[in-house]
Amino acid sequence: MKLTVVGLGPGASLDLTGHARRALEECDMIVGYTAYIDLIKDEFSHKEMGSTGMRREEARCRWAVEEALKGKSVAVVCSGDSGVYGMAALVYEVAQDYDPIEIEVVAGITAACGGAAVLGAPLTHDFAVISLSDLLTPWDLIETRLDCAARGDFSVALYNPSSKSRPDYLKRACDILLRTKSGDTVCGIVRNIGREGQEGTVMTLSELRDTQVDMFTTVFIGNRSTVNLNGKMVTPRGYLQRGT
Amino acid sequence: MKLTVVGLGPGASLDLTGHARRALEECDMIVGYTAYIDLIKDEFSHKEMGSTGMRREEARCRWAVEEALKGKSVAVVCSGDSGVYGMAALVYEVAQDYDPIEIEVVAGITAACGGAAVLGAPLTHDFAVISLSDLLTPWDLIETRLDCAARGDFSVALYNPSSKSRPDYLKRACDILLRTKSGDTVCGIVRNIGREGQEGTVMTLSELRDTQVDMFTTVFIGNRSTVNLNGKMVTPRGYLQRGT
Repeated sequence: MKLTVVGLGPGASLDLTGHARRALEECDMIVGYTAYIDLIKDEFSHKEMGSTGMRREEARCRWAVEEALKGKSVAVVCSGDSGVYGMAALVYEVAQDYDPIEIEVVAGITAACGGAAVLGAPLTHDFAVISLSDLLTPWDLIETRLDCAARGDFSVALYNPSSKSRPDYLKRACDILLRTKSGDTVCGIVRNIGREGQEGTVMTLSELRDTQVDMFTTVFIGNRSTVNLNGKMVTPRGYLQRGT
Repeated sequence: MKLTVVGLGPGASLDLTGHARRALEECDMIVGYTAYIDLIKDEFSHKEMGSTGMRREEARCRWAVEEALKGKSVAVVCSGDSGVYGMAALVYEVAQDYDPIEIEVVAGITAACGGAAVLGAPLTHDFAVISLSDLLTPWDLIETRLDCAARGDFSVALYNPSSKSRPDYLKRACDILLRTKSGDTVCGIVRNIGREGQEGTVMTLSELRDTQVDMFTTVFIGNRSTVNLNGKMVTPRGYLQRGT
């Protein structure tokens, strides 16, 4: 009787850590959002699987807790990391309503790290991770965070930069960043990280403002030291500048 | 002839992704900081290994590029992620001085994600990652970033929170955060992530200010919604607050 929240990494398969693979191999049942179950259903086809659609997050976590309380070892899977915009917190929250249960969290490669590796090395120095989805977060708080990240000259990774109902959110975000960051700031976008059709593009912040991205894209904005080295987005840590 | 920068995750072994394991298995030579080579030398003992000490980062990356140019397939290993405070950027930078070479970056679990999993789920929502090391970064920029992160109500992961030469940096950082964040803010520290002696502790920001940590510790500061649920540090995404 155990509940494990497992981060699959961006694309599952070779993105799985040894810990994640062991957790999936040892569990009795795997619960997750349909699109994430699809990533692993062939490799773990011998497992009992339970999937639910989008916006059914609370029901999914309750289901997992209740199945675990029946005596099963249950894995709740998340794309990317289990924590970063993942299900680990919600599992802890809903578990408060039930008898005590053992919960373990297994980290996965989040899109900030997975996407950065495609672009080069944009997140070498201090960075902020911000989701542009206002489903659960008021837009004015998102605006405040974008503004603070720009004022601190953080590199920024933007999750959920666009969706059908908010096609212009990336442009709005760029306009806030452009109050402080230069239009020449080196940026990048990565589509389908770790999956078929993976594609990274490096551009300036001015160009990013006028780029249409989709919900399968993660966006990277550099700090004032970030450079474009032959098409790779690279934020120096400062070793060469130190002059050693 | 290829250079791969590989993130080992916090503890290597089961923290390795499938991609990282394959890169290490397929390479001819592994280059890294001595302490990171130690993490993998038993498992990959049949490989040629090259290690250098701390503060020899540029020399290490040049060595790797030069060995690759001789026709070898070389893996440069980093603890945690290959990008976040890792060697990927420096490899791209020094490679500019040589003939073109194929470089691939393989992501690893960074301490923010690995440590978060130990504490519970502190980084569910927007967060900032800041290093307190001022070896390569002026302290006033670190102060600005801490202040901006607090003003944006980001959760924060602090890397390099202390060393022998800067025993009071975490206290100084907490004092800056406390200008904006409440002393009751839920915080956590994790020591030896993914390694022997792994240990996580949850406390308040006021308590954190007066806690002595070492260089093997990663520090987490919550946002205003972060709670302590039976000893776990949990930042809600907002699903339950939405009331679905």
